Amino acid sequence: MPKRLNTKEVFRKGRFIIKDVELELDNGNKTTFQYWDKPDTAIIVPILKNGDVVFITEYQVAFDIPMLSLPKGRIEDGEVSFEVANKELQEEIGYRADKLDKIAIFTTIPGYLSNKTHVYIARDLVQSKLDSGDEEWEMTISHYPLEDFEKLIDENKLAGARMIAALYEARRFLSREN
Amino acid sequence: MPKRLNTKEVFRKGRFIIKDVELELDNGNKTTFQYWDKPDTAIIVPILKNGDVVFITEYQVAFDIPMLSLPKGRIEDGEVSFEVANKELQEEIGYRADKLDKIAIFTTIPGYLSNKTHVYIARDLVQSKLDSGDEEWEMTISHYPLEDFEKLIDENKLAGARMIAALYEARRFLSREN
Repeated sequence: MPKRLNTKEVFRKGRFIIKDVELELDNGNKTTFQYWDKPDTAIIVPILKNGDVVFITEYQVAFDIPMLSLPKGRIEDGEVSFEVANKELQEEIGYRADKLDKIAIFTTIPGYLSNKTHVYIARDLVQSKLDSGDEEWEMTISHYPLEDFEKLIDENKLAGARMIAALYEARRFLSREN
Repeated sequence: MPKRLNTKEVFRKGRFIIKDVELELDNGNKTTFQYWDKPDTAIIVPILKNGDVVFITEYQVAFDIPMLSLPKGRIEDGEVSFEVANKELQEEIGYRADKLDKIAIFTTIPGYLSNKTHVYIARDLVQSKLDSGDEEWEMTISHYPLEDFEKLIDENKLAGARMIAALYEARRFLSREN
């Protein structure tokens, strides 16, 4: 296995911090790779009493179109507190949750990206809107049943790998509870 | 919805090309975001006759540990030909496939990353090894049943969101065939 020798920042702008890593390979050769040092992300699957998931649709810069997604936010210190998750939910979808369960931790592109995605289920939702004041663009809300969210994939409405994995894992988590 | 005004490259090193995007927001304000302009990826789910998936474990630079993954490669021109997929498979797992089906296209972090992941199922596998000569570190091979790959998640062996979504979608694709 390669041995990490040195790490140094080579670029920083906005949310991007790119680092150089010097590696010693098994054959003794040295080589340099880059990775994106990105803070962790929380994704929340908000589930209403009737089994619907509350989705958001928002503009995605790299694709230049709006896409279906789930409420999410940056994690600064490793864990999402009840308060932080509920702030996000109230700002993004207009609900707060009385019940929050952590169900998964995903990597995204572990070769190039240090970010982990922490997945939470939010239940016992109560309508409660907070204005964040810092949203750059509109988010629209939609509801679809968790039971057959695969329809959204088949209809080309849902493509995010983290979202799809989170929904499958949410359904599995709930089926084990019952 | 924001309007994209200008795009320009601000950083390039290794696999990273970071671009500045100037956006005009709905309120008329202008702002700048960055995204990573990354070529598409192919992920292949190789399935043996007995229902086992062939996984690889390889060193992941951003996490500095080996992780369970699936055969994958860069896509240069939008599609993976039968030949390119089979070259990857022969180099990474020592099989070639007589049957290849495209089952999904995922985004990863669509706000910050233009990359799409194209997911293929490879079947009718025949042992056939090719040496690539360009692998930086060892890959080890392992087999686990597709039927209950969730065990790998529960045992903290599998965490890649794209891999997990690909395996769920592979199983759904196969169940619809039957």
